[in-house]
Amino acid sequence: MIDRIRVIGIGMGDPQLLTGQAVEALRSVDVFLVADKGERAADLVRARQAVCDFAIPAGRRYRLLEVADPRRGPDAERDATAYGSGVRDWHAARVDAYAEVLVGLGPDETTAGFLVWGDPAFYDSTLRVVDALAERIPFSHDVIPGISAPQLLAARHRVPLNRIGAPVHVTTGRRLVDEYHPGLGDVVVMLDGHLACRGLVDRHPDLELLWGAYLGTPDELLLRGRLADVVDEVSTVRAAARERHGWVMDTYLLRPPAS
Amino acid sequence: MIDRIRVIGIGMGDPQLLTGQAVEALRSVDVFLVADKGERAADLVRARQAVCDFAIPAGRRYRLLEVADPRRGPDAERDATAYGSGVRDWHAARVDAYAEVLVGLGPDETTAGFLVWGDPAFYDSTLRVVDALAERIPFSHDVIPGISAPQLLAARHRVPLNRIGAPVHVTTGRRLVDEYHPGLGDVVVMLDGHLACRGLVDRHPDLELLWGAYLGTPDELLLRGRLADVVDEVSTVRAAARERHGWVMDTYLLRPPAS
Repeated sequence: MIDRIRVIGIGMGDPQLLTGQAVEALRSVDVFLVADKGERAADLVRARQAVCDFAIPAGRRYRLLEVADPRRGPDAERDATAYGSGVRDWHAARVDAYAEVLVGLGPDETTAGFLVWGDPAFYDSTLRVVDALAERIPFSHDVIPGISAPQLLAARHRVPLNRIGAPVHVTTGRRLVDEYHPGLGDVVVMLDGHLACRGLVDRHPDLELLWGAYLGTPDELLLRGRLADVVDEVSTVRAAARERHGWVMDTYLLRPPAS
Repeated sequence: MIDRIRVIGIGMGDPQLLTGQAVEALRSVDVFLVADKGERAADLVRARQAVCDFAIPAGRRYRLLEVADPRRGPDAERDATAYGSGVRDWHAARVDAYAEVLVGLGPDETTAGFLVWGDPAFYDSTLRVVDALAERIPFSHDVIPGISAPQLLAARHRVPLNRIGAPVHVTTGRRLVDEYHPGLGDVVVMLDGHLACRGLVDRHPDLELLWGAYLGTPDELLLRGRLADVVDEVSTVRAAARERHGWVMDTYLLRPPAS
């Protein structure tokens, strides 16, 4: 019977990115609830299993429960991102599915866990789902932060995300071109399926682009250069990688040239 | 003789926030370079020592080398933050001090480490110092990301930092009032010694304020509410805590009311 839900940020796939708190939390979970997103995310399923194998001692019993996603495919949430109402409908259907699973747990299954890539605080719907579940079923819950893609991008490129005293703006590929102006400071772009920064080449050719894909995995790719000079290379490398893996997960930082 | 520098994000003081990668990195360091910021930061010195004690086995030998800061006091960097040139002068003096220490290391001391609160990617000068050092002394370097204050704030309040598909803007107290408009999305404020959000009460009374101080420590404080309703309470609680501890480290999130 469900008593507690833990929302656990697991970083970017490398078990060494787990915090001690996340490891401890993983060990306390009886049932992990996992959105079944279909075969295309098979690499992610393997990486998730690797995280559990790393953190959880062999003797500890737990279940990984796949919950069918109302809409399939890893791009579903992405494509819907800008359409608040579409996402909300999809969340409602997801909440129904999770609620059904939670009320059906065994008597000894008191702690459920959600594994979240990166950090639950960045562009992830789990906390909204858990809030909605809490309106129907009584349980306590906590949130364990994890290393997010923008942080790992910055670490791998060995740069800070901000210039001295200046802001950092995190946005989506969908919003970037309309939203961008230099006053935003350094800009991190997430959820960008189409390398929207190409739309800034004419107006801001001198921006520096720092790009990374499959961050934290052995397939990690990094590129960096003046936007106008490097965007074609990034586009080519990205397309080739997507072809090879069947999927691509990337993020990038745009920053004004150093004065 | 220096061969490698590791810039290690150690999270917010709780050793359980260290990643496995950070623990591994801490164990590889021969000499930790630490800015001596004077007595006011004694709590931080203790917390840093606790992190080393937690991560590094008793048998492993290392030195903690305090390097006198050219300008003293934990507020020095803060007050200078908006003044790029002032910060740059201060960095140059710091680089001189660190370079002197690095060239004087013993023959077996090949790996130096910088411990950075939170994440080296957010409002921290270490990477700029290391880049400047690299122009004078040959060494390799890497960066280990850590859990930052905004992430821990979000985790403790159990909220995401962004609304669905909307941006996140991270800025400083000094910039907030001039910069703020609802199009920025949810706004995280760092380096704010004076609760600048009070300056938004007249124009945006309905913003939600989610505040946290001493995040990740046993003294953690959390408050949350409609900006106009809660700002006085935050101010009072903050002043009392600063009085008690001699210092305060806090951050907050401002977000438009849910529609």
